[in-house]
Amino acid sequence: MVNQVEFNLRQKRRGVHLITDEVIQALPELPLTGILHLFIKHTSAALSINENADPSVREDMNRIFDHVVPENQYYFTHTLEGDDDMPAHAKATFVGSNITIPISRGRLNLGTWQGIYLCEFRNYGGSRRIVATIMG
Amino acid sequence: MVNQVEFNLRQKRRGVHLITDEVIQALPELPLTGILHLFIKHTSAALSINENADPSVREDMNRIFDHVVPENQYYFTHTLEGDDDMPAHAKATFVGSNITIPISRGRLNLGTWQGIYLCEFRNYGGSRRIVATIMG
Amino acid sequence: MVNQVEFNLRQKRRGVHLITDEVIQALPELPLTGILHLFIKHTSAALSINENADPSVREDMNRIFDHVVPENQYYFTHTLEGDDDMPAHAKATFVGSNITIPISRGRLNLGTWQGIYLCEFRNYGGSRRIVATIMG
Repeated sequence: MVNQVEFNLRQKRRGVHLITDEVIQALPELPLTGILHLFIKHTSAALSINENADPSVREDMNRIFDHVVPENQYYFTHTLEGDDDMPAHAKATFVGSNITIPISRGRLNLGTWQGIYLCEFRNYGGSRRIVATIMG
Repeated sequence: MVNQVEFNLRQKRRGVHLITDEVIQALPELPLTGILHLFIKHTSAALSINENADPSVREDMNRIFDHVVPENQYYFTHTLEGDDDMPAHAKATFVGSNITIPISRGRLNLGTWQGIYLCEFRNYGGSRRIVATIMG
Repeated sequence: MVNQVEFNLRQKRRGVHLITDEVIQALPELPLTGILHLFIKHTSAALSINENADPSVREDMNRIFDHVVPENQYYFTHTLEGDDDMPAHAKATFVGSNITIPISRGRLNLGTWQGIYLCEFRNYGGSRRIVATIMG
């Protein structure tokens, strides 16, 4: 069985956002066993799985991204689209444009402390489009 | 065909560990052709594929993780769970909670020098739970 | 339906390379709906999805990789295979050895600005082998 749906996330500010509920609401009925593949159709935002409870994790993670890939480096040549653009591309490649989550007993089989993250690396990234493919 | 199994890895010290054999022993029979999806149900450890021969690669990789995301940064606010906690979350997002490996002729189709890594980012992470989903 | 093909990419210099066309030419006919899983059978190169238009993004991204994981660090012990070797392993784990792309209406469902990247982290990496698994 293959099922696929494409949807937009609501626009978010630069930072790390918990989107588990927003994703689940966009999905059709899940099979008993299988996988959910999520793919973001953009090159300056990314998807990840991480801690779902304490908002300070998401704040600190965003700060870490900014320290690992700082803006305004002397060696950047791709600078026309803003200071946040080239670091956003690099962060997107470090974090990744796609995640796959197991489905068990008809539900996403996430750990107790896991949630789905949208990492928005642009200052004004706009709405982000996701393709969800369910295989089971 | 979808098959799924959930299992615990034996507890490991902080660092990078080769778990190819431990994973294979936990798997049911594989289809001739397909994919194996591995998902770790934790937010401070990660899965990767890398060099399977020289232990010094895994030692150095762990040191690189600690240099890319150092502990005790002045801008951390999520500090109550220990100095290793927030860096562990960030490293987990950089490395990723899931990997997918092709299955060919009934076996994992890894390159000659590839093995499956558990990246344990906590000092005392305990046993880690994995969901393996086989599609073929 | 499962279909799988294994192929070599043409040898490339160290850096980030757009390989969307080279990959598509190696693929069999795609199903209407499904996923394409790409896996690189090496531990010092990686696959990613990123910007497909401006070559300066790929140049800068390669420079960022070299700044995040610099060569010749005092704490490296895995040094016998060249200055580029250990950083290449670490970069490969940060970027990842596999990507999965949705297939919709018989084509790869990439965003307008997305392409497939080979990140070649070795100075002389040789030809790289890819396993493409199509599920639909």
